Amino acid sequence: MNIVLFYPVERLLHICGFYTFFESYYAEDFYFEGEHHNFWEVVYCLGGTTGISADEKIYRLRPGDLAIHRPLVHHKLWSEESTRAHVLIFSFNGDGALLKGLGGAYSCDMELQKQWNDLFCRLKESGCRSSCTGFLQHLQKHPAELQAITNLCENNLLALKEQGLPLGYNQSKNALDYERIIQTMKRNLSNNLTVEELGLLCGLSASSMKKLFRHFNSMGIHEYFLHLKMKEAVRLLEEGKTVTETAELLGFSNQSYFSTAFKREMNEIPARFRRNRS
Amino acid sequence: MNIVLFYPVERLLHICGFYTFFESYYAEDFYFEGEHHNFWEVVYCLGGTTGISADEKIYRLRPGDLAIHRPLVHHKLWSEESTRAHVLIFSFNGDGALLKGLGGAYSCDMELQKQWNDLFCRLKESGCRSSCTGFLQHLQKHPAELQAITNLCENNLLALKEQGLPLGYNQSKNALDYERIIQTMKRNLSNNLTVEELGLLCGLSASSMKKLFRHFNSMGIHEYFLHLKMKEAVRLLEEGKTVTETAELLGFSNQSYFSTAFKREMNEIPARFRRNRS
Repeated sequence: MNIVLFYPVERLLHICGFYTFFESYYAEDFYFEGEHHNFWEVVYCLGGTTGISADEKIYRLRPGDLAIHRPLVHHKLWSEESTRAHVLIFSFNGDGALLKGLGGAYSCDMELQKQWNDLFCRLKESGCRSSCTGFLQHLQKHPAELQAITNLCENNLLALKEQGLPLGYNQSKNALDYERIIQTMKRNLSNNLTVEELGLLCGLSASSMKKLFRHFNSMGIHEYFLHLKMKEAVRLLEEGKTVTETAELLGFSNQSYFSTAFKREMNEIPARFRRNRS
Repeated sequence: MNIVLFYPVERLLHICGFYTFFESYYAEDFYFEGEHHNFWEVVYCLGGTTGISADEKIYRLRPGDLAIHRPLVHHKLWSEESTRAHVLIFSFNGDGALLKGLGGAYSCDMELQKQWNDLFCRLKESGCRSSCTGFLQHLQKHPAELQAITNLCENNLLALKEQGLPLGYNQSKNALDYERIIQTMKRNLSNNLTVEELGLLCGLSASSMKKLFRHFNSMGIHEYFLHLKMKEAVRLLEEGKTVTETAELLGFSNQSYFSTAFKREMNEIPARFRRNRS
């Protein structure tokens, strides 16, 4: 036996499993109630124009564009430009170095669009259902096909670096105003701002802010500010800060109120979360 | 956050890394000196006719056919039918339930042939070299592409069950005579046969047997018999048999001779091999 070198394959992206995997057509007036969750989500635009909000950014996805929502990024989706948005959506848990820099929206080159369309056709062949887990219900009975589809999803995401261009975000006045509100919130995570104080900082009236939030977000202004604080809390706790330090850094004078808010967001109290992650 | 079900992805085939990955054209009179090794090898025929021996079986691969050699299967390769064999070859280590039933030769359907050809074109794009690790030397500098290629290899092998047909083996008199010799060896692993005794059992002269071995195998008759015994030794030791039991079951009256033969094949003595696998 000759001595031969071994070239190990490092997985830059490893998808461990899926939560949802489906195709959807949305009516012209469709508005998806926004959501955020503790896993990744990919929205690939197959047809029509899809409006997407992802935290403070607003994107307009046209066929061949996709959005990647990192865990805990609040996102919402709607049809735009009088079209019916047609999308392929999947959400997953995974690991690997690629995920570090992934997020936002991308425009795929022709070759990569072909790969997404091939993937979509392959999914359709194996029988599509309308529910959020439609493809998964079929695939879980066909493990070889499930792995093959997973491998193709990984490949399409791996290709983004070479064959995808970051998509510019929507620069309309509304979108920029909305972005300014969120950015102001992010700069003030250690403060307790009222809606009126936030409005003063942004140069917007409370009623305009509420209108923008109804449009681009599914949460109330105060509720969203709290959501951003909790996302920061996750980061601080993972960094090793104590629960007390974290509550103080985020402007909570009452630690029990902080714990309640954290549990509502993360389904566990901060002390346990910290223990489990360290 | 809604409660959502998680659908984990079970990997039926996980390629951990590669030893070789290359394309090759062989002259009409090419004869590859056979080999066996402790990892998997795939030979996909891109053009011409490729003769393949894999243990006792002789195959004729035409474009779109492939052979999969399990670890320790002795194999040899040559051009046939006055053509220049053109092949894509890779060898790997991996795990997963798929590997259990994999081995031998297959004919791929048109769709799967397209997938192999796409894979080959993609490899060529990233620069081909003639050495056995040609593609790997490039890919190891491009980890995203290495993972993508690996995922596609996995997918093509996963597809064999649905899109591949086991290939009938060569039924020429020579091939069948050769097969009979190996099968007789396999039935007599517990005996010590001389070449003449083997010939009597097969109804072949020692000189015909030697000719067949020169054609389909790179080892001598006695040497190959020993190789088959060592493959069986691996199985017995992995099953939990002691070194003494194993030596006896394979007709070795001298345990130290058994250990020497085993070390030559597996690069470690049987006692250590057994310890490492149990």
